[in-house]
Amino acid sequence: MSEPSSPSAARRKPARITSAQFGKLLRENLPMMADWGVAVESIGHGTAVLSLPENPRFLRPGETVSGPVLMGLADVAVYAALLGAIGPVPLAVTSNLTINFLRRPGPGAIRAEAQILKLGRRLATGEVRLYADSSAEMAAHVIASYVIPDEKSGG
Amino acid sequence: MSEPSSPSAARRKPARITSAQFGKLLRENLPMMADWGVAVESIGHGTAVLSLPENPRFLRPGETVSGPVLMGLADVAVYAALLGAIGPVPLAVTSNLTINFLRRPGPGAIRAEAQILKLGRRLATGEVRLYADSSAEMAAHVIASYVIPDEKSGG
Amino acid sequence: MSEPSSPSAARRKPARITSAQFGKLLRENLPMMADWGVAVESIGHGTAVLSLPENPRFLRPGETVSGPVLMGLADVAVYAALLGAIGPVPLAVTSNLTINFLRRPGPGAIRAEAQILKLGRRLATGEVRLYADSSAEMAAHVIASYVIPDEKSGG
Amino acid sequence: MSEPSSPSAARRKPARITSAQFGKLLRENLPMMADWGVAVESIGHGTAVLSLPENPRFLRPGETVSGPVLMGLADVAVYAALLGAIGPVPLAVTSNLTINFLRRPGPGAIRAEAQILKLGRRLATGEVRLYADSSAEMAAHVIASYVIPDEKSGG
Repeated sequence: MSEPSSPSAARRKPARITSAQFGKLLRENLPMMADWGVAVESIGHGTAVLSLPENPRFLRPGETVSGPVLMGLADVAVYAALLGAIGPVPLAVTSNLTINFLRRPGPGAIRAEAQILKLGRRLATGEVRLYADSSAEMAAHVIASYVIPDEKSGG
Repeated sequence: MSEPSSPSAARRKPARITSAQFGKLLRENLPMMADWGVAVESIGHGTAVLSLPENPRFLRPGETVSGPVLMGLADVAVYAALLGAIGPVPLAVTSNLTINFLRRPGPGAIRAEAQILKLGRRLATGEVRLYADSSAEMAAHVIASYVIPDEKSGG
Repeated sequence: MSEPSSPSAARRKPARITSAQFGKLLRENLPMMADWGVAVESIGHGTAVLSLPENPRFLRPGETVSGPVLMGLADVAVYAALLGAIGPVPLAVTSNLTINFLRRPGPGAIRAEAQILKLGRRLATGEVRLYADSSAEMAAHVIASYVIPDEKSGG
Repeated sequence: MSEPSSPSAARRKPARITSAQFGKLLRENLPMMADWGVAVESIGHGTAVLSLPENPRFLRPGETVSGPVLMGLADVAVYAALLGAIGPVPLAVTSNLTINFLRRPGPGAIRAEAQILKLGRRLATGEVRLYADSSAEMAAHVIASYVIPDEKSGG
C-alpha cells in the first residue's frame, strides 16, 4: 500500500494541500462555507484545525450554535484533513456522517479538530472534535466517511 | 404511557402544531433555516414533509446540493415531526444524527419526509428520507434522536 | 451503470443467491451466526428477511434480547440483502453500521427485514428493521454500508 | 450538576465499580459476553479497557474477527466505562451505536479502550477504540449512547 494509514505516521508526512489552497478551494467550491467565515487554522497530512466565527445567525433557542452549523463545520473539517492527505480532490464526497451532540457550545466561536483515522484507496474515515472556543470540553463528536473518486485515489 | 409510540397509531392522531405555527417558530428561533427558505408542506402527529428551494448558494462541486445543507434540512424535518407529536417545545435538542448520502440530488429543490419511529418520554428517534424534487429515488437517509426536556415531556 | 440502484426496480429482478445458498455460506463462513440459529426466510434482489429463534443465551437484564445479538442479526441481514443483489461475494465487508434501539423486544424470536437503499459499484447501503416476532412495532433500526471488493463489483 | 462531565476530571475520581464486580455482573447478566471470554483489564471513572481472547468461532471470511463480535465487545466496553462512572446500574441500556470498521484486525485477541465523553443525568455518550492485540492501529471506532434509568441517575 502506498498510502500511510496510521495517523501517527501520517502526521510526520507533509500536507498535500496548504491552508491557503484549501481556503481558495472553499471559496470557489463551497461558497456557503466561505460565507459562514470558516477559517483554516492548520492542515497536516490527515489532520486539520478549522474555526468558525461567532455569528448571531448561527444560533438556535438556548443561545447556542445550532446543530446544522456544527455539522457543516465538521464536514468541512474532515474534508480539509482528507485533502491534507490526498491533495486537492474536489470531488471527494461524504458517504456518511454521525454526529453526537455532547454539550451546548454557547453562542461563541467554534474550533474543529479533524483527524483521518483510516485512509483507504477508495474510502477514508475521519473523526472531528468540536469545541466552544472558551472551553476544553468537547461540544460535539463527529465521525464521517468520504468516498475518494477513482482517478485520484492514487494521490 | 400516555404517548403513542407506534407511527401508525400516531398518524391517526391530530398534529399538535400547525404548519403555520412551526413556520413562525422557525423564523423566530432558527433564522438560518428560515433564510434558506425551508418550507413546511405538511405536519402530522409524528410526521412532517418539508421542502428546500433551489439556490445556487447550496451547491458543492458536481453541481449538487451540499451535504451540510441536506443535514440541516433533515435535522429541521425531524424537529417538525417531533413537534407535530409533542407540540411546541423549542428546547427539544438533537442528541445525535446519522446521515447516509446515497445519490447526488443535483442542483434543484429537495423534499424531506420525516417520521418519528419512537416517541419516548425523554428521547425520540426519527427517520428522514430526502429526495431531489425531480426523482423518486432517495438522495439521502437520516436517522436522528432528540432529547425532550423534562418540563415539557408530557406534552 | 449496469446495476439497478432503485429498490423498487431491484425487487422486480430475481435474487442472485438463493436462501439455501446463503444458508450454506453462513454455515461455512460465519459459524457463530449459524450457531445462533439465524434462518433465512426469503432473499430477493436487494432484500432479505431473516429470523433469530428464542434462546435464553441471547438475553440481557430486563428479559430482553441483548444489543449485540440484535446488531449481529442486522449485520447478517444487510449482507443477505446485498448478496441477493450481487450474488455470492463472501468478502463484501461492513464499512459502518448505526443501530438505534427503539423498544425492548422481549425474550422471544426476532425478525429482520433488510433492504438495500443504494447499490453502488464499490459501496452499498442498506437498512434493516428489527421486530419482536409478537409485535408490529419496530424494536430497532439499523443502517449499514458494505464495501464491495473490486473483482466482483461488476456483478 | 453533581456528576462530572469532563473525561479528564472523571479520570481523577475513583471508579464506582471494580473489575471484579463488573466481571460478576457480566456473568450473571450478559452470559453470552461471559461465554465469549470478555475480560476486564481495568475500569476507571468513565473509562474501561476490555479484552477478547482469540477464538476460531469469532472469525469471518478473510480470517478476521467478525463485525458482530467487535460490536458486542465495544458495547460491553462502553457499558463498563459507564458503570465505572455511575456504579452498578444493570438496566442502563444502549440507545444507539455507530461502528466504523477501519482495518481488519486479523484472527487474534482484541483490545477495547472505552471512554465516556459526556455523562448527563439521563444520557451518556462514550467512545471505544478497538485494536488487534498485535497492532497499534485502530481496527474499529465506536461511538454509543446509553440511557440511564431515572431511579439510578443520581448514582
